[in-house]
Amino acid sequence: MRFFTLEGIEGSGKSTQAKLLEKYLLEKGRRVVLTEEPGWGELGKVVREAILDRRDIDLDSYAELCLFCADRAQHVKNLILPKLEEGFTVVCDRYCDSTVAYQGFGRGLDLDLVSRMAEASALGVEPDLTFFLSLPVERGLFRLKKRRENNKMDEEPLDFYARIDEGYRKLLEKNPSRMKLVDASSSPGDVHRRIVSHLD
Amino acid sequence: MRFFTLEGIEGSGKSTQAKLLEKYLLEKGRRVVLTEEPGWGELGKVVREAILDRRDIDLDSYAELCLFCADRAQHVKNLILPKLEEGFTVVCDRYCDSTVAYQGFGRGLDLDLVSRMAEASALGVEPDLTFFLSLPVERGLFRLKKRRENNKMDEEPLDFYARIDEGYRKLLEKNPSRMKLVDASSSPGDVHRRIVSHLD
Repeated sequence: MRFFTLEGIEGSGKSTQAKLLEKYLLEKGRRVVLTEEPGWGELGKVVREAILDRRDIDLDSYAELCLFCADRAQHVKNLILPKLEEGFTVVCDRYCDSTVAYQGFGRGLDLDLVSRMAEASALGVEPDLTFFLSLPVERGLFRLKKRRENNKMDEEPLDFYARIDEGYRKLLEKNPSRMKLVDASSSPGDVHRRIVSHLD
Repeated sequence: MRFFTLEGIEGSGKSTQAKLLEKYLLEKGRRVVLTEEPGWGELGKVVREAILDRRDIDLDSYAELCLFCADRAQHVKNLILPKLEEGFTVVCDRYCDSTVAYQGFGRGLDLDLVSRMAEASALGVEPDLTFFLSLPVERGLFRLKKRRENNKMDEEPLDFYARIDEGYRKLLEKNPSRMKLVDASSSPGDVHRRIVSHLD
């Protein structure tokens, strides 16, 4: 198993857990690439800016979906796939499940189309394991509010995140062997131990 | 009929014909918006640059498809739809058929997915009439070479354009009432008269 992804709503601790997982895998002697979506590479910069930062761009939901998928295809083609082929282990903070949960369930776009577009954006590269960091929505958003710099996506109402959480749970039901539910409500060390227990 | 689109390969004279059509409609007393794809608005600038200009971005075909669709959704939402609602006639140089012809037939991506994505990008706004300016591929590319500034898309091989031409012909068969074949091999005035004959 060499391709791991982390999923969850804002404030669920994905990036902290991604770093702890990277450290763990490095200690096991693996060569590891830690990466995240959206925003990889030259196209990613542009996409991330349009989606998250540019408040002058009133982004249509379908356009947003397309930008996330464009960003992923570039990320897979130019980083994830080459690194996997070179023998690296790849840890990615967010991947296709984010697209289905956020754009399909969160934004309410046609779920079948969103799923097909998300699948196509992976260029055939599926994670071996996906950790869904589960946390009550209110708690995630509370953690988020304590951060200094929020982006456009962080200003959505509570029910947007509730729909995303529901989306993740449906994805979990649909993909029981790939996706693992991880209770993310306790300390980073505890959550890390739960993640690692799935690797052994 | 208030929404007209022009389609065809590079060098088929679309932009010239779009301007002549705009002039004709203005003379008929209509309020007209002349626009083109890709590249409308703030997101469009960014998309157009990534697709056509940035030679440092080795763009994946699926990412390219996504960017064209993102660009269109923004264009429809923020320009085409509002203008139609205000009573304007809209003339657009390229629209959904370009996506199917170029990304579906030209790039060889999954045609069913491309068609669904192109349809979704129109946000339900379909042209009343589409003029397909038909010209032997070699002639279009010959015209193109005489231009000074070419972009990335203009450097594709001849068979890429042959597949696109075939794609347009299939779209024509599928949409006989909306799409009109216009022989674009004679003078701009002649071609314009052929286009106008479909309006009366």
